[in-house]
Amino acid sequence: MESKGFSEKHRVTYYETDMNGTVGLGRLVDLMMLSCNDQSDAVGLSSEKVNQMGLGWIVTQNMIDIKRLPRRNETIYITTHAKSYNRYFCYRDFWIHDIRKQELAHMHTVFALMDQNERKIVRIPENLIEPYHSEYATKIERLPLPKELERIDRQKEYEVRFWDIDINQHVNNVHYFEWMLDALDLDFLIKYQPVSMNIEYKKEIRYGQKAVSQAQITMTGVETVTTFHEIKVNDELSCRAVCDWKLRKEEWIM
Amino acid sequence: MESKGFSEKHRVTYYETDMNGTVGLGRLVDLMMLSCNDQSDAVGLSSEKVNQMGLGWIVTQNMIDIKRLPRRNETIYITTHAKSYNRYFCYRDFWIHDIRKQELAHMHTVFALMDQNERKIVRIPENLIEPYHSEYATKIERLPLPKELERIDRQKEYEVRFWDIDINQHVNNVHYFEWMLDALDLDFLIKYQPVSMNIEYKKEIRYGQKAVSQAQITMTGVETVTTFHEIKVNDELSCRAVCDWKLRKEEWIM
Repeated sequence: MESKGFSEKHRVTYYETDMNGTVGLGRLVDLMMLSCNDQSDAVGLSSEKVNQMGLGWIVTQNMIDIKRLPRRNETIYITTHAKSYNRYFCYRDFWIHDIRKQELAHMHTVFALMDQNERKIVRIPENLIEPYHSEYATKIERLPLPKELERIDRQKEYEVRFWDIDINQHVNNVHYFEWMLDALDLDFLIKYQPVSMNIEYKKEIRYGQKAVSQAQITMTGVETVTTFHEIKVNDELSCRAVCDWKLRKEEWIM
Repeated sequence: MESKGFSEKHRVTYYETDMNGTVGLGRLVDLMMLSCNDQSDAVGLSSEKVNQMGLGWIVTQNMIDIKRLPRRNETIYITTHAKSYNRYFCYRDFWIHDIRKQELAHMHTVFALMDQNERKIVRIPENLIEPYHSEYATKIERLPLPKELERIDRQKEYEVRFWDIDINQHVNNVHYFEWMLDALDLDFLIKYQPVSMNIEYKKEIRYGQKAVSQAQITMTGVETVTTFHEIKVNDELSCRAVCDWKLRKEEWIM
């Protein structure tokens, strides 16, 4: 059967934007995941239903490209497409377009299915993947992975909050963005805007744990910077990422 | 001229809800404030415009009553009405209704205007209030204020994050809810649901500051609890609140 996409319209609210008047990276991922959640509801496989089977979808990698961040009050189109899958992984693409159909952002994401009691990845049953009409691929995709930090330029500690926990009873990936980017501090986040990000999730974080967010900042040009990120709990790696930034200019914002 | 309200429809997204599948208290206030922001945009007095005048609207008190918290994917109606004002304060009401027009929540809020350089409350100029068609009231409302803590049962520290800062360049009030309620911990927030909350904002918090969130938990009945909250920066009070809770029951959730 032909592979199908899913699309929806969304207005960016004021509380979905930050001091720069645009959507932050974590919220951008939230917005994209919205289409995925809504598609799952539409095919009768809501997160709640998957949870009732003792399972939960988790993201193991996100690769994001950003042309322009959606602005406060802007109407956008969010599209998702469950591209392909193999026994253990699903590959899904996301796009955000503006009302003139210009692409603002694209994300390629790897999903896996977790047994909620064992806290381990399990083989994907056919009935949980069939409704999305993905293509079966025997190969596991070989995606580039973010490199280890060479040095720690910035570091901050984060205690898991109630609001960080999701339906899978662990810290939702999106909150990792807050921890990774907040460690760069306000001046950096006003001066630069993200161009692309590659995030690999290694280990879940639970309520009651304390995470440390470490960042390395490397100038790559006059107006470009690359930041490397690691989130650790008790010296164990939970997440690793690399992000490319460029100088924020008026013409990029408006 | 007759006083006018403003109303809009909103679908609650998955990322606007917490582990309980309902909107949290901070997000509930965000949702209500959305209607206020949209009304301001509609009358040509957006936050950006007010900011360009060197001014910013700040909230000094919120009084919230909750019949039921909006649920994931629920469509709600958000209504606001700029009830009355005097020289220094504006009184505004908010309501959330479900699609059957049942009231889910109501909030009464006191606004003031801050000079962004002086960081002080200023007299409200006529041109910033006239478009809302509020009634002029000579009297200042005497609202009940939350009481001081008698003891500290729970305490947590919070460092201001980039994502906490709003267009007024201080911590947005809504993040105070995260700090106040997160201090109660996960077990409490799963066991109880909020019924009403009264929050008085005393002093703004800026980037780089560390806040301490203190809470007192007082059982008031077999299934009811009252919590008292204070947020302080260097022993100076930033916010004080009181919240009534009742045992979360299935029939309340669904």
